Amino acid sequence: MKKPLFDFELEKTQGLARAAKFQTLHGEIQTPVFMPVGTRATVKAMSSEDLVEIDAQVVLGNTYHLYLRPGDDLIKDMGGLHKFMNWKRPILTDSGGFQVFSLSKLRKITDEGVRFKSHLDGSSHMLTPEKSMEIQMNLGSDIIMAFDECPPYPCSDEEMRGALKRTTDWLQRCITAQTRPESALFGIIQGGLSYDYRMEHMEQVLGLEELPGYALGGFSVGEPIDEMHKMLPSIAPQMPEHKPRYLMGVGTPSDLLRAVNAGIDMFDCVFPTRVARNGTIFTWSGRLNIKRAEYARDERPLDESCECKVCQNYSRGYLRHLAKTEELLGFHLNTFHNLYFYQDLMKKARQSILAGEWESFYQTTLTRFVT
Amino acid sequence: MKKPLFDFELEKTQGLARAAKFQTLHGEIQTPVFMPVGTRATVKAMSSEDLVEIDAQVVLGNTYHLYLRPGDDLIKDMGGLHKFMNWKRPILTDSGGFQVFSLSKLRKITDEGVRFKSHLDGSSHMLTPEKSMEIQMNLGSDIIMAFDECPPYPCSDEEMRGALKRTTDWLQRCITAQTRPESALFGIIQGGLSYDYRMEHMEQVLGLEELPGYALGGFSVGEPIDEMHKMLPSIAPQMPEHKPRYLMGVGTPSDLLRAVNAGIDMFDCVFPTRVARNGTIFTWSGRLNIKRAEYARDERPLDESCECKVCQNYSRGYLRHLAKTEELLGFHLNTFHNLYFYQDLMKKARQSILAGEWESFYQTTLTRFVT
Repeated sequence: MKKPLFDFELEKTQGLARAAKFQTLHGEIQTPVFMPVGTRATVKAMSSEDLVEIDAQVVLGNTYHLYLRPGDDLIKDMGGLHKFMNWKRPILTDSGGFQVFSLSKLRKITDEGVRFKSHLDGSSHMLTPEKSMEIQMNLGSDIIMAFDECPPYPCSDEEMRGALKRTTDWLQRCITAQTRPESALFGIIQGGLSYDYRMEHMEQVLGLEELPGYALGGFSVGEPIDEMHKMLPSIAPQMPEHKPRYLMGVGTPSDLLRAVNAGIDMFDCVFPTRVARNGTIFTWSGRLNIKRAEYARDERPLDESCECKVCQNYSRGYLRHLAKTEELLGFHLNTFHNLYFYQDLMKKARQSILAGEWESFYQTTLTRFVT
Repeated sequence: MKKPLFDFELEKTQGLARAAKFQTLHGEIQTPVFMPVGTRATVKAMSSEDLVEIDAQVVLGNTYHLYLRPGDDLIKDMGGLHKFMNWKRPILTDSGGFQVFSLSKLRKITDEGVRFKSHLDGSSHMLTPEKSMEIQMNLGSDIIMAFDECPPYPCSDEEMRGALKRTTDWLQRCITAQTRPESALFGIIQGGLSYDYRMEHMEQVLGLEELPGYALGGFSVGEPIDEMHKMLPSIAPQMPEHKPRYLMGVGTPSDLLRAVNAGIDMFDCVFPTRVARNGTIFTWSGRLNIKRAEYARDERPLDESCECKVCQNYSRGYLRHLAKTEELLGFHLNTFHNLYFYQDLMKKARQSILAGEWESFYQTTLTRFVT
């Protein structure tokens, strides 16, 4: 019998760390999971076949970018985002809110929503909770994120209280506007680096209708990352136990490990793909920059313990040459390897939790990525 | 029993068009053949696995670029160009002469060779026939090209006579310097758009030691391309019948078809890869530019009759979006399709010659690519 959509099964916990799974229309998602970011209907330098090859379970799309270009109406007419980018597995889309704040010009926030000018052509647009839901449903996403206001870091108490209230009000409007049963709406908990604000807002969010998942927003916006990690073990375990917990926009391998250790299930970040294009590579022995002169005649693969196609076929010397000459193939191979590593990291984290070996895996692996 | 290296077998002729094959250390090459250009040890936006998938038989490497960066000594130390770029099939390298003329600064030609300054860092270098042979042998190429002087278009009689004499003298020095039996040295026939000069130079080149192959150089350097096509049917058939005939740096699909029809066997050109990155796509119905607005909501593949992975998986609408947003994946998919098309074009040309159907294939296909 087919499992009901978004049915969440907590398989095993070890300390605060969790292994779980849940269902979407486009397949099961097993956690902990890292979601590669496909900003404009493509994970940069990766085809959908590549994403299957690295065994990505779910990719993220950006509502702000897709709304502006090529337009969610076009994507809907073309059969939805899955068909458009030929990706048959689950898709999560953000609400557009974060990019409106970080990319657009002349934005003005009111209780109604956010008026902004496109960073592409200066045209004027209005994003509201209802509009964000409409766009994400047009895209046909399996998981859609509530439209929220991410308070800046640092911000005044007044700004914070305004953002929390608006985020709660807007979540209620998202719930009302969400009419597509195949799209799971996740609520977002804000509150910056204040434990009290986080708990206060979590209470508000959980006071509304029960949702299929919950996210922590507003981290990784410029604050010292250790501040986040200090908070997570006290915040994350208070999120609903039998729902996926998603930490938005995070992070490095050590961030992922520490957050899993605090009870987080889901992650996304442009970090592994963005730095790949600059030559930064992740391996099971730690981080390296392939552009360094020491790798010029290095015949070894990026990571001798890695089974990805890059490590099976290409030497560090060759990859250094591609990086130094800024060849397109270099961007692809470095991205492919880094995303494979992130998938592998989350897979091994999951296996170690299921096997009751999380603590030793966590300690051993974390030491290689102390930043 | 293993066939001897560079053993050339003329399988079938139809009119002037030929189907043939010959052996290299890294496998057989079946003609007519198009060689994708891997300038800096990579065909731009394609991995070696991709090149196998499109069934490229042989790729071209550029001696000038590889000599400057990462250096032929480094590539030799890393096991040769095949191992460096993980390409197990044949490699042809040019002599470096053409790029010295087109890219470097302050070049000075003497009978000894060409002194030039690197376009990368202004450092001073000397390329001679002996040096070109040494570099190409260090790279471990299956086919190495003689170091020649390509006369500009247009040029005076005096310039032409100087270039021809030097090219012949330099070829003799290449023959003497070529000491690696696995690398087949091809001679280059120059002579611009003059039938008399071409025949005069061909006689000089053929008057030297017998070589495993011969090329026509100095076309596609700015002259009206129809002038080349007027000449080819009278020049190409006078090249040795039982050796591969290579037309360097050409060209468009119609150029390839017309040159095959004149008796040419081998081609290389950056054209299909370079224009792919600009959105120009070749199909069996002709050329299209995927950036055009008419393709925005087009759910069809680039070419409904094409079996490449791009046409199996992605729509014109999606590829237009990638091209308009200049996404790296767009560069890859367009390049992959164009090179697949070129391989397919040469494969079908070969099949039609072998089947005795060249004339009708030629006429039907050419009309779709009249430029």
